[in-house]
Amino acid sequence: MSRVVSHVIAGKMAAALFEAAGAPQAEAALVARELVTSSLMGHDSHGVLRVPDYLDLVMQGKIVPGAATQVERTSPTTAMIDGGWNFGAVCASQAVETAVDMARGMRTACVVTRRCQHVGRLGAWVQAIADEGLLGIATCNSPIHGHFVVPFGGKEGRLATNPIAYAVPRRGDPIVADFSTSVAPEGKVRAYRNLGRVLPAGWIVDAAGRPSTNPADFYGPPQGWLLPLGGEAGHKGFALSMLVEILGSALAGRSTIDPKVAGNGLWLLAVDPSVFTPLEQFRDHVEELVRYVKTSPGVREGGEVLVPGELEFRSLIRRKAEGIVIDDVTWQALHDHARRLGVDLAAIH
Amino acid sequence: MSRVVSHVIAGKMAAALFEAAGAPQAEAALVARELVTSSLMGHDSHGVLRVPDYLDLVMQGKIVPGAATQVERTSPTTAMIDGGWNFGAVCASQAVETAVDMARGMRTACVVTRRCQHVGRLGAWVQAIADEGLLGIATCNSPIHGHFVVPFGGKEGRLATNPIAYAVPRRGDPIVADFSTSVAPEGKVRAYRNLGRVLPAGWIVDAAGRPSTNPADFYGPPQGWLLPLGGEAGHKGFALSMLVEILGSALAGRSTIDPKVAGNGLWLLAVDPSVFTPLEQFRDHVEELVRYVKTSPGVREGGEVLVPGELEFRSLIRRKAEGIVIDDVTWQALHDHARRLGVDLAAIH
Repeated sequence: MSRVVSHVIAGKMAAALFEAAGAPQAEAALVARELVTSSLMGHDSHGVLRVPDYLDLVMQGKIVPGAATQVERTSPTTAMIDGGWNFGAVCASQAVETAVDMARGMRTACVVTRRCQHVGRLGAWVQAIADEGLLGIATCNSPIHGHFVVPFGGKEGRLATNPIAYAVPRRGDPIVADFSTSVAPEGKVRAYRNLGRVLPAGWIVDAAGRPSTNPADFYGPPQGWLLPLGGEAGHKGFALSMLVEILGSALAGRSTIDPKVAGNGLWLLAVDPSVFTPLEQFRDHVEELVRYVKTSPGVREGGEVLVPGELEFRSLIRRKAEGIVIDDVTWQALHDHARRLGVDLAAIH
Repeated sequence: MSRVVSHVIAGKMAAALFEAAGAPQAEAALVARELVTSSLMGHDSHGVLRVPDYLDLVMQGKIVPGAATQVERTSPTTAMIDGGWNFGAVCASQAVETAVDMARGMRTACVVTRRCQHVGRLGAWVQAIADEGLLGIATCNSPIHGHFVVPFGGKEGRLATNPIAYAVPRRGDPIVADFSTSVAPEGKVRAYRNLGRVLPAGWIVDAAGRPSTNPADFYGPPQGWLLPLGGEAGHKGFALSMLVEILGSALAGRSTIDPKVAGNGLWLLAVDPSVFTPLEQFRDHVEELVRYVKTSPGVREGGEVLVPGELEFRSLIRRKAEGIVIDDVTWQALHDHARRLGVDLAAIH
């Protein structure tokens, strides 16, 4: 059984738990807001179900609530954000603030991170950049433990699902794209397994590198692998993933294969469009492009073209009204942590 | 019948023709070198066969040899390059030079173009950035006449094949990725048609939006369309293509749907890795990554993992030794232009 909970209550519950686990109030609220927003936008895999995961990581010492983040401005246009193993959202939020501030002054800014925990929904951080009237691009890699994706032409995992996100200001909600450079992220394979369903073709190979539609062939043992975006043109997904890995590791001075490396390697780019064209004209041109692509008739009866982020913003409105679903396992885990931390979840309203 | 010609001779022939068509010597040599290098690297569709195409465009007044390019530095990190309808390679080369110069000083630089003709192999320009020890990313859009790619979920073309390229310094040849954000570029469909072959599944749809493997369904009439990269996950290819379009049009102050817009919209980003980590350490980490992904066994017997650009650099060595193939149609067209321009191709050696 699962529960439908108002996002306001879910946010208060998460914030109370993070605070009880040692996070300063503002940081607890920030992390809670980000996870709840992911649930609202339909990205449940990066939503409220991560609250107990994060609390587990706090218990393991892998997340250090309240740890100081440090901003090292390595030049007028670049910065390295040291997240100090605080929640990833705290580090990412600091990275966004720095990138926006630098791009306002210098028009272009490029930020990388170190000691940055799980940043959650990557799209959130470029969206925050677009909300400031800037164009944002982000990539995010993961360390060797998460290298589930085969390089094109190979049959053993060498890269993580390495997502790319970007956001562009328009009138109203920005364009927000956020996607893994594998055909599917691991979370989707897990969802199929949990539902006992067969996977779409082209998502995974088994341990021997043979195509499979059985989720069990991914989880093993022996462990199988995810395929890079593109199918027969998977050299393109692989190329994108290599870029994400380089921006997250080599550019930040880290090794790809060091087993001691942990957390996410976030790369952010912010560009001020108004340095090339008045911002209002830029917004007009983006709006015109959106209208134009949407004039294509749908390939399916009654279908339509949705620009990146449109589905998520629709979900946001719907779930703000209807509430978000919290599955039983997550609900139980939230209450276990609450008991441990002395938080009375029932009193939150 | 086709001929095998030394790249040196092909380059001299092309340069002589461009010079006779009005290009200053250095610019004629630049454009010739870029096209011949594309042929050497295996990208014949962007190679010597473009020489007569470019000469046709000169005759039509769409390429203006010797036209002045202008660099407007809109801020310390950004510039707009006006190509003045000179050869696209001249504009792109100016864009690279400007981006490298700005990134050396400011560490991050972002350049867009206007009145820029066909830039040729996009990878050439990021490769030139990587040759300077910088990380380069480029995108390139095309105007509404080339909108052959359907938006995901739609069934009429609304975007061009909008390629993305990047290059990263390593030891020896850089990593150079360069690929369209459709499953396949138009040139590959044409090659299948010319050979009378059936297309791989998933490349095109016919005019009604139905999947097809018949190249004739793309060329029509009625005209069919190319599919975005990703197949069932084609929302990812579409999202990438939207970004390329925005960087090439809206950011440069241009409309996507204006039928008067022509040429390529090039966007270049250059980042100096040494602002985050010593360049030699960066190269070491990239080299380590390359070795690591190549340790994956090949999925095919005797296969191997190739990093982006590796195939092209192998082709470069082979074709420098063996020569490049010039098909009969191109050979004839070169000689027609030579007669018209008073160039004695037979005297070139």
